[in-house]
Amino acid sequence: MSLEQEIRAIALNGKAAGLDLMKRPLKQLDEALLSMASALEEAKERILAANAIDLAAAEQRGLSGSMLERLKIKEKTFESMVAGVRQVVALENPLGKTIREWSRPNGLKIKQLRVPIGVIGIIYESRPNVTVDASVLCLKTGNAVILRGGSEAIHSNKALLAALQAGAKKAGLLETVVQLLPMTDREAIPVLCHQEDCIDLMIPRGGEGLIRTVTEHARMPVIKHFNGICHVYVHEKADLKMAEAIIINAKCQRPGVCNALETLLIDESIASLFVPQIVKALKEQQVEIRGDQRTQKWGGEEVKPATEEDWRAEYLDLILSIRVVKGIDEAIAHMEKYGSRHSDVIVTEEASVAERFLNEMDSATVYWNASTRFTDGGEFGFGAEIGISTDKLHARGPMGLAELTSYKYQIVGTGQIRP
Amino acid sequence: MSLEQEIRAIALNGKAAGLDLMKRPLKQLDEALLSMASALEEAKERILAANAIDLAAAEQRGLSGSMLERLKIKEKTFESMVAGVRQVVALENPLGKTIREWSRPNGLKIKQLRVPIGVIGIIYESRPNVTVDASVLCLKTGNAVILRGGSEAIHSNKALLAALQAGAKKAGLLETVVQLLPMTDREAIPVLCHQEDCIDLMIPRGGEGLIRTVTEHARMPVIKHFNGICHVYVHEKADLKMAEAIIINAKCQRPGVCNALETLLIDESIASLFVPQIVKALKEQQVEIRGDQRTQKWGGEEVKPATEEDWRAEYLDLILSIRVVKGIDEAIAHMEKYGSRHSDVIVTEEASVAERFLNEMDSATVYWNASTRFTDGGEFGFGAEIGISTDKLHARGPMGLAELTSYKYQIVGTGQIRP
Repeated sequence: MSLEQEIRAIALNGKAAGLDLMKRPLKQLDEALLSMASALEEAKERILAANAIDLAAAEQRGLSGSMLERLKIKEKTFESMVAGVRQVVALENPLGKTIREWSRPNGLKIKQLRVPIGVIGIIYESRPNVTVDASVLCLKTGNAVILRGGSEAIHSNKALLAALQAGAKKAGLLETVVQLLPMTDREAIPVLCHQEDCIDLMIPRGGEGLIRTVTEHARMPVIKHFNGICHVYVHEKADLKMAEAIIINAKCQRPGVCNALETLLIDESIASLFVPQIVKALKEQQVEIRGDQRTQKWGGEEVKPATEEDWRAEYLDLILSIRVVKGIDEAIAHMEKYGSRHSDVIVTEEASVAERFLNEMDSATVYWNASTRFTDGGEFGFGAEIGISTDKLHARGPMGLAELTSYKYQIVGTGQIRP
Repeated sequence: MSLEQEIRAIALNGKAAGLDLMKRPLKQLDEALLSMASALEEAKERILAANAIDLAAAEQRGLSGSMLERLKIKEKTFESMVAGVRQVVALENPLGKTIREWSRPNGLKIKQLRVPIGVIGIIYESRPNVTVDASVLCLKTGNAVILRGGSEAIHSNKALLAALQAGAKKAGLLETVVQLLPMTDREAIPVLCHQEDCIDLMIPRGGEGLIRTVTEHARMPVIKHFNGICHVYVHEKADLKMAEAIIINAKCQRPGVCNALETLLIDESIASLFVPQIVKALKEQQVEIRGDQRTQKWGGEEVKPATEEDWRAEYLDLILSIRVVKGIDEAIAHMEKYGSRHSDVIVTEEASVAERFLNEMDSATVYWNASTRFTDGGEFGFGAEIGISTDKLHARGPMGLAELTSYKYQIVGTGQIRP
């Protein structure tokens, strides 16, 4: 079979599995998840052995330490992966929930309710735990899944998939509710992206190159989990001690994630006071600082000059760019020009200014006096998260279970016809 | 300027206009709509004269009568177009509405509320009234619009646009809140579809060719208004008089629209009784009938043989395909295989069967004992409709004002940081 034929067969299987899933009771979906958790436990040795093969190959190919770290299924990773499956079972299911219902003057009763999307494609890179996490969240919400993991993790992913499929089968579902592309050719992605009659949604999770490839080729909807170039703006009426705590937390608590702070904007009216304070605090945390002229002036030699690229940079590291701005308008203009509208913060004690910022700044999450690090499904109380959407359609910001559903209208009549 | 540069400039203007719109009070949006209605009235002569140029050119090029009909702005069309603008002003605005709000144990207050999407691209064919209808709905919901109409209507569209822009300007908005691509080259569509950093959503409205082009090239989300291959399934326990009324209404009341009936499925247990009845009724309405063998057997010579293509056909005309099926499972299987999951009906007096159909059939709108013709924003009570989405992401079925919005999260804290 050619690559095209092989992927076509997987897509068609996915479609059939998705249609079948829609006819199953919710109870059976949860049973399948529990059965998958047990199957993973039973297959633990096989999974860890497969992971060792991937790790050995990766080491031989000279992959970096952080790549190896991401690839490795440690004892603890494995346990929390299985525990995660059981936690999803316990979550309230949005499927079948009524979003709204109303009656029309002609007596028609209209109900809008949550249904599965159908088939979801997940394209990801090295972390094998995504194989399990993403599959389980999609299945909980009645969706079939087609996975495409990175070549580095192919043995791990195949072993995980076998366990997931065994679990599905044991619970009486089609094995094909979860499928994995067995080939890791780069050309497989465009072919998968052209199966728009079978795959209803594509979620790419990975670096910029992967996301661009998917966006360019996909003919079905795509929900991206892209850059987070997050800002804190310290207004002239800020509580500077609070501002310092928020900035240090947003930058340093976990610098490698999308909701970490990348650029700090300081109001010019407090710059002479606050720049030295924050530079000192950041230096204590080993943060490299790149600032505009005024930040350099007030921050001293610790501050390297920032270039135009720094304002667009997602460092994902202990580096921070700082700019002094004039008022909220210049702050918003900077964020609109350079930011990614992921998570942006104003620190101020003045409610009217905060209100303006919350209303006018068009970011997925806008904060008044809190750290950017709360943009997270768990922190929102969603219980589970399949990613943080940087798109504006269907899902924006942290995506919980509800964001993995669509809706339909059920209309009940008594023979109504349109006049 | 090259085509690319010209379209890039329009896209950038659109983005700036969209950002500006987000900072305007809702009152100003409504003022702009009223001002646009007046400007259209003032420009009436110019608009009708421009339309006459398009009509003359279309006649010379030998366009069909129905094409000319769609292109023509009659006195009555013009009046209802302007009245339509004022009706949108009166509609409740979803912008700024709280979708949900909650507090977290750490004291953070989270509010999810409706905001504009940003910039919406509308690509359409010959009807010039779309220029006004679509612009007004997008603007009501705070979105900037970039229009791309068909070449046949370019003079009409330019005249309409001039009036819309004059109205926007008079109300203190940027003229660029509404823009029209002045060029009608086919190559303009792919170029527009690559402006994903400026255009947040593309809505193609037109034939299959147009929709495929947009789907293939667009790198931003697309919401399609595609085929409606709608079904009625007459169950063995149906009230046959009701079934006949629903079928005649769904097929004949307005055959050229997407929510018209295209395929009728009749349960085999009542076929010998119902096929002759419905064939007679359809014939009285001059409907051409194409049936499977059993329909031909019971329906007589009036029934032409149906081919495989008939089950996939969106006739948009007084033609109906009929198939005899065995029970609800075969009915659903037929609709899943051949339908477009737009609007599908079961006629039955048996509640348990109806429930199964409503739950298991995955269509945007599923009906029990009513005509498919109610799948319409107006009939749903939405007040206005920008189309009927055949997609499952973001919007499904009739799209009202709420479907032209996105959301964001506003989070209010007191200095919270993540532990």
